[in-house]
Amino acid sequence: MAKPTAPRGLARQRVLDAALALFAEHGVHGTSLQMIADRVGVGKAAVYYQFRSKEDIALEVLRPSIEDMARVIRIAEALPDAEPRRAVIVSGLIEMTVRYRQLAVYFYGDPAIDQLVRSQPEFNVVATRIRELLAGTERTVADRVAQSVFLSGVCKAAADPDLADVDDGELHRILLELSGRILAPA
Amino acid sequence: MAKPTAPRGLARQRVLDAALALFAEHGVHGTSLQMIADRVGVGKAAVYYQFRSKEDIALEVLRPSIEDMARVIRIAEALPDAEPRRAVIVSGLIEMTVRYRQLAVYFYGDPAIDQLVRSQPEFNVVATRIRELLAGTERTVADRVAQSVFLSGVCKAAADPDLADVDDGELHRILLELSGRILAPA
Repeated sequence: MAKPTAPRGLARQRVLDAALALFAEHGVHGTSLQMIADRVGVGKAAVYYQFRSKEDIALEVLRPSIEDMARVIRIAEALPDAEPRRAVIVSGLIEMTVRYRQLAVYFYGDPAIDQLVRSQPEFNVVATRIRELLAGTERTVADRVAQSVFLSGVCKAAADPDLADVDDGELHRILLELSGRILAPA
Repeated sequence: MAKPTAPRGLARQRVLDAALALFAEHGVHGTSLQMIADRVGVGKAAVYYQFRSKEDIALEVLRPSIEDMARVIRIAEALPDAEPRRAVIVSGLIEMTVRYRQLAVYFYGDPAIDQLVRSQPEFNVVATRIRELLAGTERTVADRVAQSVFLSGVCKAAADPDLADVDDGELHRILLELSGRILAPA
């Protein structure tokens, strides 16, 4: 009974891998289902057998990172104080961003992805809760600007082609150090 | 003789304004010439009378900011030492990002815009020269990561809808202070 599922799982993964590469190159809007099918080397019908739409594929590509982030949120929320909660979110975001470096290429910035994430209640909850936990209790305008710079700057850096030669461990260490400087009270 | 030019200039500007709003909402790929024409309240032919293509419109929307940046580069290059050159670039980028806040929404991040900018030699020269002047003479991996975080973080923050209530002057001051912290030697 295992045999029919294994190839299907593989086929799904090949579609997701091809889509990820194409989204990073052309954005979600610039990628068609035909392009994804061509990259996998199958017909469009075979892709439709696995996914309902291009947006469905984009959401599946994003899902593991959103689920990881939901776990980090649960870990943070188990702590009683705002400051350590915030530290867990910062550290968790950096760890995740480095691990999903290729994904980050289009996760932050592509307006199509932003709209897609906002349209999914479960994804939206995670994005909102990250901002809330980062914010902590009281924050000045300077704190809010620093958080915004941290969120987009750190996520984009992981995906910066100019930093492709920097290994994951070193990037992780440097981003942690930088986030300390960015988020320190002015 | 001035009369025929004025309405044409106005019509061009109306197309550019509509395009900018639509690009920010849907990305360049997600915006069609038809959508731009609808927003202006004219037919597609009227838009084609002004511009050859959607990409042509996107480049025209970007042009003033690229020209401003080219001016900042010339000011920086007139200075003899690497450190003050770098300071001029940092300060010039922040000033420009705040002034073009709405533009920054899609200037950084949209893969279609990245490709478009890279495809234009005159724009590409400006982008490369900014990175070179920011880099200065010698730089560690940590310096390179900090520059990447500065470039994407600062530009995105200016466009962050969560910071829409922060006035330009205050945002400028906070971003300058933050950039000092981000770009300080580790």
